[in-house]
Amino acid sequence: MPDQILAQLDSDSDAALARLFALLRIESISTDPAYKSACKDAADWLVEDLNSIGFEASRRDTSGHPMVVAHFSSPGPHVLFYGHYDVQPVDPLALWDNPPFEPTLEETPKGTVIRARGASDDKGQLMTFIEACRAFKAVNGTLPCAITILLEGEEESGSPSLIPFLKENADELRADYALVCDTGMWDADTPAITTMLRGLVSEDFTIHAASRDLHSGMYGGPAINPNRVMAKLLAGLHDDEGRITLEGFYDGVEPGSNTIKAQWESLDFKVENFLGEVDLSHPSGERAFTALEQIWARPTCDINGVWGGYTGAGFKTVLPAEASAKVSFRLVGTQDHEAIQTTFRKYLEDGLPPDCTISYRAKDGAGATNMPIDAPYFTAARQALSDEWPNEAVFIGCGGSIPIVGHFQEYLGMNSMLIGFGLEDDQIHSPNEKYSLTSFQKGARSWVRVLHALT
Amino acid sequence: MPDQILAQLDSDSDAALARLFALLRIESISTDPAYKSACKDAADWLVEDLNSIGFEASRRDTSGHPMVVAHFSSPGPHVLFYGHYDVQPVDPLALWDNPPFEPTLEETPKGTVIRARGASDDKGQLMTFIEACRAFKAVNGTLPCAITILLEGEEESGSPSLIPFLKENADELRADYALVCDTGMWDADTPAITTMLRGLVSEDFTIHAASRDLHSGMYGGPAINPNRVMAKLLAGLHDDEGRITLEGFYDGVEPGSNTIKAQWESLDFKVENFLGEVDLSHPSGERAFTALEQIWARPTCDINGVWGGYTGAGFKTVLPAEASAKVSFRLVGTQDHEAIQTTFRKYLEDGLPPDCTISYRAKDGAGATNMPIDAPYFTAARQALSDEWPNEAVFIGCGGSIPIVGHFQEYLGMNSMLIGFGLEDDQIHSPNEKYSLTSFQKGARSWVRVLHALT
Repeated sequence: MPDQILAQLDSDSDAALARLFALLRIESISTDPAYKSACKDAADWLVEDLNSIGFEASRRDTSGHPMVVAHFSSPGPHVLFYGHYDVQPVDPLALWDNPPFEPTLEETPKGTVIRARGASDDKGQLMTFIEACRAFKAVNGTLPCAITILLEGEEESGSPSLIPFLKENADELRADYALVCDTGMWDADTPAITTMLRGLVSEDFTIHAASRDLHSGMYGGPAINPNRVMAKLLAGLHDDEGRITLEGFYDGVEPGSNTIKAQWESLDFKVENFLGEVDLSHPSGERAFTALEQIWARPTCDINGVWGGYTGAGFKTVLPAEASAKVSFRLVGTQDHEAIQTTFRKYLEDGLPPDCTISYRAKDGAGATNMPIDAPYFTAARQALSDEWPNEAVFIGCGGSIPIVGHFQEYLGMNSMLIGFGLEDDQIHSPNEKYSLTSFQKGARSWVRVLHALT
Repeated sequence: MPDQILAQLDSDSDAALARLFALLRIESISTDPAYKSACKDAADWLVEDLNSIGFEASRRDTSGHPMVVAHFSSPGPHVLFYGHYDVQPVDPLALWDNPPFEPTLEETPKGTVIRARGASDDKGQLMTFIEACRAFKAVNGTLPCAITILLEGEEESGSPSLIPFLKENADELRADYALVCDTGMWDADTPAITTMLRGLVSEDFTIHAASRDLHSGMYGGPAINPNRVMAKLLAGLHDDEGRITLEGFYDGVEPGSNTIKAQWESLDFKVENFLGEVDLSHPSGERAFTALEQIWARPTCDINGVWGGYTGAGFKTVLPAEASAKVSFRLVGTQDHEAIQTTFRKYLEDGLPPDCTISYRAKDGAGATNMPIDAPYFTAARQALSDEWPNEAVFIGCGGSIPIVGHFQEYLGMNSMLIGFGLEDDQIHSPNEKYSLTSFQKGARSWVRVLHALT
């Protein structure tokens, strides 16, 4: 019984919060090269903390941001824990009520929250696991099983170093299965294990026309405007029913099992609350599906960014030389991310009028994942979570991508179990990101129970 | 005969160039509030220069950038000369070979050019007229007729102060007709008087959706993406033939007289050269019209700028809270700019899906203009220009808008005559703007001949 460990966690909670705040103060934005040294600082901070509780931890440099790898040997099963210490950019900065890298505790109608970029995604989450390990070590002098920890610094920027690192260090990293802490609860009282993840294809591209920006008075009419070409291409990606028009896009999208559908229908999901949180009221996805299916079981196409021409104050009557966009697709079932990337590029290129060319800056891709929910460790973990929280734990889907799960499968031959304590209103990737203090504290207690149950 | 005046101009050419360079060094970008004091400096510089050659000149402050007004009393006809001392923004700065506000002389295969922002539009042009006046004063001690000069500082930013200023000072500014120097030659050997100008309607607007940026994994599907709404609205503005789809948009677009059509067909216009200059080859406007008609006699709709979501380095899987665009229309004939603005806003608002709202930041509008080309001063000026240049002067159209012409008509009851010396490859509004040294020098000589011919 882990009662002593749980008591130790509770008595150490102020120090645990101070440690999390120290990590949150490090500005580890991985997508922006200006923050490279901050990412290294975050890795070093974690290495030092893990060494202090008995892991053999080290910073493992890559051509991008470093990995942190830590080992603890023990009899019993061997788990690999994964989290990421990098965070999303903070723009638009003006919308933050407090500076994003000066964490604060804030009282809200829903309880106390930790407010900072990365509070929920993923520093707060990964520290729940480390605090659980620290409590085991403090009480027992050891951990309940063999644990390898892998903390990444490029999760928010396409993980360019991850696959090479997994390949090169496969023997060192391989375990019985992985525990990944980067997902959410069903609601504040109901823990969840995420068993379906959407995949992701991303493209960042530019359409080029004239060799320079043109005056719309002098050239407006005969000269092609790449903003107009871009608008037409982007507008053509969906039909009037909200379906994506790319040829073969829906190949591999499965109808979904009735068991899972029934479980989802039993959930107390109110689309008006879900959208109402962000001042929306109308589901805008494919008309033939419920909002929960649209998020968990249907693919999407999203224009994440678009820019071209004059965007400053006032007017400039310019026909720009180029227009750019970042477009991503969320994938489900067995949709083939490479085939979709190829089809998307063909769609763009086939739609280019004469005189226009296209260039690609970056791409990214991973397929969707479905977990082996009948494995015994899923049952044990679900029970352990149910013991900690007011409501029983549920198996849910997740609209986001966690490509690591597919990579662990492909390169280490390992399944993953996704347990996390984020809430839907955490505003991850947005201004004023927060993590519930309850998520942080009961999250650590949950890992104590789960680790105990798995051994 | 103005031979002595022309000789004076030629002998003073180095000093004239030095004066133009001094004016070009002033960073008078009117659309960006950061350059407000530079605009005032440009106005002060002009006031001092005009006073030094016998005008009574003063800076006239407005709620925006100041006007410069100068008077010279004399018997004979009374002309109002108009130019503007403000310039376009310089972005993208990286594409300039030299700093935009450090004017240089550069030898090119087509002759010596003055390279700087504003060299052609409009500082170089307005100084041709001032240098002509200076030469008259130096030789004759006086000017050949009564001259009022009005120099504006907001031409590139919608001229918010212009109409109030014209209304308040109508009696002071009214003359027999206006001379406006903000247009081009037909080619480097062929001077031109521009007798048709397109009008302009501009809108700067934002589509709003969710109350904050959203994670596309968590919300992609049910949550509306304003980038997608924007793409659809912008793409719907043209049909497959290149025609603009707004209801009633072509009301007032006249077929054009056969005389003018015949004159245009006789011009040595090669669309492949015109587009080839900027590495294009296919006219992309309305299929039923020649490229010259598309520029001079047909209206257009141009997306001058568009932006929404994440546009920095790397990927951010965001559904933005808003998307923005700047759209303008070039108008011809008697198209009603206010009606088109109303129709465009209705088009946008009718096309908004549920949960989206639209806000407008700025708008601008002026109708097209057609000149009284049979008036005697048109004949006299055309002959004077023909005397200075290798080829005879021609009456041409212009795709751009010079709203001042309509304002002079409406508020001062005056016609305008548009004479300018810009060339098509001057790259106005683009990086590396230039003005041919020949345009500058023979431009000043042309004004000497025109002023002489008008008196």
